Amino acid sequence: MRDLSADHRFLSINTATVRQQADLIGIVEACARRNIRAVSPWRDQVSAIGLDRAVQAIRDAGLQLSGYCRGGMFTADDAHRAEMWDDNRRAIDEAAALGSPCLVLVVGGLPQYSRPGSAPSKDIRAAHAQVHDALAGLLDHARAAKVPLAIEPLHPMYAADRACVNTLRQALDLCDVIDPDRQGGIGVAIDTYHVWWDYEVFAQIARTGRDRLLAIHVCDWLVPTKDMLLDRGMMGDGVIDIPAYRRAVEEQGFDGFIEVELLSTDWWSRPLDETLDTVIARYRTAV
Amino acid sequence: MRDLSADHRFLSINTATVRQQADLIGIVEACARRNIRAVSPWRDQVSAIGLDRAVQAIRDAGLQLSGYCRGGMFTADDAHRAEMWDDNRRAIDEAAALGSPCLVLVVGGLPQYSRPGSAPSKDIRAAHAQVHDALAGLLDHARAAKVPLAIEPLHPMYAADRACVNTLRQALDLCDVIDPDRQGGIGVAIDTYHVWWDYEVFAQIARTGRDRLLAIHVCDWLVPTKDMLLDRGMMGDGVIDIPAYRRAVEEQGFDGFIEVELLSTDWWSRPLDETLDTVIARYRTAV
Repeated sequence: MRDLSADHRFLSINTATVRQQADLIGIVEACARRNIRAVSPWRDQVSAIGLDRAVQAIRDAGLQLSGYCRGGMFTADDAHRAEMWDDNRRAIDEAAALGSPCLVLVVGGLPQYSRPGSAPSKDIRAAHAQVHDALAGLLDHARAAKVPLAIEPLHPMYAADRACVNTLRQALDLCDVIDPDRQGGIGVAIDTYHVWWDYEVFAQIARTGRDRLLAIHVCDWLVPTKDMLLDRGMMGDGVIDIPAYRRAVEEQGFDGFIEVELLSTDWWSRPLDETLDTVIARYRTAV
Repeated sequence: MRDLSADHRFLSINTATVRQQADLIGIVEACARRNIRAVSPWRDQVSAIGLDRAVQAIRDAGLQLSGYCRGGMFTADDAHRAEMWDDNRRAIDEAAALGSPCLVLVVGGLPQYSRPGSAPSKDIRAAHAQVHDALAGLLDHARAAKVPLAIEPLHPMYAADRACVNTLRQALDLCDVIDPDRQGGIGVAIDTYHVWWDYEVFAQIARTGRDRLLAIHVCDWLVPTKDMLLDRGMMGDGVIDIPAYRRAVEEQGFDGFIEVELLSTDWWSRPLDETLDTVIARYRTAV
């Protein structure tokens, strides 16, 4: 297990963490000033400044990417299927242009939430099947672009409206079906916030293996959690034994960036400098 | 699969559903007036009127029990361990006195939330081990009292503060370890609200088998869910395909009561009659 206490060379900032304080240019510059070496931008933040300008700003700042957020929302009714495919192919191409090592996928829940306007459904098994089909259908494009698809199992409280892949076991079952010979192009993004509760998580991390460990996200679980989406905790402020999960992925050979992704109205309400400096401090002591 | 549309003879009311509107006597009487045949009371509601009076009121009303809520909160530091054992043995004895077919268990999360005053811990694996040890330690008492222990896997959003058993697979793994020869005395309570998201749930219901299917609870998942504890939905108002889960348990031979357990500030704020009448109507059309 790496010692992170001395510096923050393996820290990556998911740009949603400070999305309310600055645009992507401002975030990239603030990261560069702190010798942060990597970011993981969101598509809407890239779109707001334009892809070419985002590519240039990240290059000028000497930053790498630890991921690109996000593709997915695969579940849709027939009328919204073409939109789903187009949207995801573009996401892969943008990730390639930005030099991202993967495209993080939030796979979608029920179609009416995943692709608004889709006919309402309560059939989560049908949603599971659509997710499988979309992943299988995008794999060639992802491989050709050298942007592996990173399935992010989301906490089960998001099953209806964000992602119906909710455990690492489920994500890896999909990988096994879609890429049985482990040729690559598909794997997982593991976020402590989403998986910490799972009694099987360490066994499933061991099953994942280095080749399918495409991204590691960290933040903390607060008690009480006052909002299901925007009350995630700064590392050290909650109940997750974050180092235990980092140890487990590093035992698989993971030696990449540890990405901090913190969706929090609390931390969004603070100055950019305070939030980033706190992330760095907690990365060194609580990750 | 049973036809529930013609009457409500298999309906049970978990008394938490109308806990703000009346005490246990008032709830029992309101159920009897509607020819509801079963209830599942909570310990604090029984305690508020006294156990003997509760036994008498339920008997006088001709009601059966579908369960008794709840034992558990097994995780504790050393200073709170004796309290945990005493509390759970008493819960078993109360369930026996009330003629309950099982004791529903909310197993506890981290010890500081499960048994307040316990030393804070982030070690959820240690919590899992404590849950195992408590179940194993209570089994003889439960068998002697003829009150089987019903492990209720709770939604993973409660892992920290209420229950660190969060999937049916996990609950059944515990049953297999503690009762490998299926001699009985331990099984599961399945609540649609807690398990609906799980891609494995049908396979795990099939694994459960009739002998370990001790209780079935239903309510619905609302989108958005505004409060993690008290915003559960009336059947039909949310996104759960409740009949699909009922079909799965009845295919295992389950022919007992379908218990409605709805923790909702919305439904608590309405008159007792309105909430109960709506439960009956929805039981016939959406369960």
